[in-house]
Amino acid sequence: METVTLARIYLREGEHLLARLLDTLRDESVRGVTVLRGIAGFGADREIRTAALADLALDLPLVVEFYDNPERVTAILAHLEIQGGLAHIVSWPVTLHTPEADAR
Amino acid sequence: METVTLARIYLREGEHLLARLLDTLRDESVRGVTVLRGIAGFGADREIRTAALADLALDLPLVVEFYDNPERVTAILAHLEIQGGLAHIVSWPVTLHTPEADAR
Amino acid sequence: METVTLARIYLREGEHLLARLLDTLRDESVRGVTVLRGIAGFGADREIRTAALADLALDLPLVVEFYDNPERVTAILAHLEIQGGLAHIVSWPVTLHTPEADAR
Repeated sequence: METVTLARIYLREGEHLLARLLDTLRDESVRGVTVLRGIAGFGADREIRTAALADLALDLPLVVEFYDNPERVTAILAHLEIQGGLAHIVSWPVTLHTPEADAR
Repeated sequence: METVTLARIYLREGEHLLARLLDTLRDESVRGVTVLRGIAGFGADREIRTAALADLALDLPLVVEFYDNPERVTAILAHLEIQGGLAHIVSWPVTLHTPEADAR
Repeated sequence: METVTLARIYLREGEHLLARLLDTLRDESVRGVTVLRGIAGFGADREIRTAALADLALDLPLVVEFYDNPERVTAILAHLEIQGGLAHIVSWPVTLHTPEADAR
């Protein structure tokens, strides 16, 4: 077991930042990335976006998650913040249970 | 950087609580809300619900997440619990990385 | 309020481990399970998998989450690790807010 940092970046589909972000995270060789797509959400503008109207082209929320060593996550997030455009990033420590943790 | 509380509310689609919950969270002006829809899940009744049967009308799990200042999240959750019907709520502290954190 | 452990298991659809995992978690009577399906992701092989090509048969990431008492989660995860095949498991403590927490 090992303590790693789980980072989560909130995007909106309409920002078209996902492809570049995934490339960056891959270039940084983070251990793994998962992208979740929300069905509804709203941000600072308080305008609710939802898939309820069955329009798949809507500007739905995306959640990009990855984890790595705390110091690597800090460095990667600093890099991403400098790139700009990434408005909402949170992170927290988690326990990594897999024996393959250092198989990178 | 700032420590905020990330709250997560588990619903089931069949409960039809999402629209009211989103309205409440918007009225509370939480910083942002993301709703994720699960493809499978089960709750206290131990009955597995899954989208594997390709029936989009199934009673799938919904995960409603938001974050804000710890004291605000505590107050909002207390409010929601009083409204009732929200069976499963968890929260944990996270580090908020964005410089826009106080741009609300 | 009560502190529980939230565990998250990362799978890929192509591993075909989900059904067995859900059965195991149900047999363990964990309080509730939610399965989320990612739209993109990559793991240790750094190959990006994405649903952008609209092929639902792709090997997309799955996130299986559950929570329970810390000691029960530890025991369940140990059991799952012995079963093998579950490469990426993280967990962290969360506050459980519902008064129904011990209604199991």
